[in-house]
Amino acid sequence: MQFAIVLYPGFTSLDVLGPYEVLGRLPDAEVVFVADEPGLVRNDLGSLSIDVVATLADVTAPDVVVVGGGPGQLEQMSNTGLHEWLRTVDRNSAWTTSVCTGSLLLAAAGLLDGRRATTHWAGLDQLAGFGVTPSKQRVVIDGHYATAAGVSAGIDMALTLAGLIAGDDVAQAVQLVIEYAPEPPYDAGSVDSAPAAVVESAMSKLSG
Amino acid sequence: MQFAIVLYPGFTSLDVLGPYEVLGRLPDAEVVFVADEPGLVRNDLGSLSIDVVATLADVTAPDVVVVGGGPGQLEQMSNTGLHEWLRTVDRNSAWTTSVCTGSLLLAAAGLLDGRRATTHWAGLDQLAGFGVTPSKQRVVIDGHYATAAGVSAGIDMALTLAGLIAGDDVAQAVQLVIEYAPEPPYDAGSVDSAPAAVVESAMSKLSG
Repeated sequence: MQFAIVLYPGFTSLDVLGPYEVLGRLPDAEVVFVADEPGLVRNDLGSLSIDVVATLADVTAPDVVVVGGGPGQLEQMSNTGLHEWLRTVDRNSAWTTSVCTGSLLLAAAGLLDGRRATTHWAGLDQLAGFGVTPSKQRVVIDGHYATAAGVSAGIDMALTLAGLIAGDDVAQAVQLVIEYAPEPPYDAGSVDSAPAAVVESAMSKLSG
Repeated sequence: MQFAIVLYPGFTSLDVLGPYEVLGRLPDAEVVFVADEPGLVRNDLGSLSIDVVATLADVTAPDVVVVGGGPGQLEQMSNTGLHEWLRTVDRNSAWTTSVCTGSLLLAAAGLLDGRRATTHWAGLDQLAGFGVTPSKQRVVIDGHYATAAGVSAGIDMALTLAGLIAGDDVAQAVQLVIEYAPEPPYDAGSVDSAPAAVVESAMSKLSG
């Protein structure tokens, strides 16, 4: 089973590497990182570069597609080559998925028309502009589309997907292997629970 | 503030990239991935390669050191150059930290003698062999050592550390930026909560 993970300059690493850690551990999983061009692709923080060996043209029939977000997503909104690739591989994919603002790329490619989907909390309004019904759920499954909320939500999306693909027992074994029994030291991970000053501070970080 | 993240062949990516996503977002953070040699370092699953530009010799005074685990940790138990580097940088580090079986490397370097520490659930017994008191806590702080349980626990460790380094407000803003309000679809992330058959399956995955 082939999992294609899309990278582009300015991607947020945990968006894609959270799901990678889960999906890459499924039986017979083959993961390929894919980008417009081969070579090193640098993330949003500028200090992490991942080596990409496959171009979009090389990967024609992935079973699962994962598109992450990050500041670089904005530039990809006009990458018609990527959108065309997404539409093409989506025709035969078992699952087309996104994390964070990656869903805006699926939406820009026209894949989420009339669907329910989610994205990073700061991007929910934008989804509606594409004829998508935005959801504040952490993981949304609609048809063969799985979308996750911001950054770390990709881990929950991938475990949900792992269960749908390989069964609950396998998904749970992967959860235990990665010891995913989270204990955040604060309750500030959602706009509903974070103090107002923290929301403001996070928004200024995101717009900076 | 410089954060040095140690990589070696066969590392588990989320071990180090979970903390990276948190710590790299702290004000004035400079993150450097460091390894024995420069170039691409490939992970345990074999499908992810990170480009390392700094050798251990290049990084002499990091403020924070992060050592992750993974199957490749076993080979590093006899990497005396790495152990020597860890002892040296530890003398001036504000925090020396580990995720998963990375703590076995800190222990092998002699840094955790008489300390409380944690590691991946499957590695807790090994810690005791190094004169360390193993703890089943998800995050253990003892002196200027912060150790995390398996793989995904590095995110919780890093948020705890973020609070200690930059204050609760900043740590919470980072938590909200990465929307870390986890909702695992199963309750199988710890040996205490996972069904017995899942524990058995996870152990066979880990030993395979």
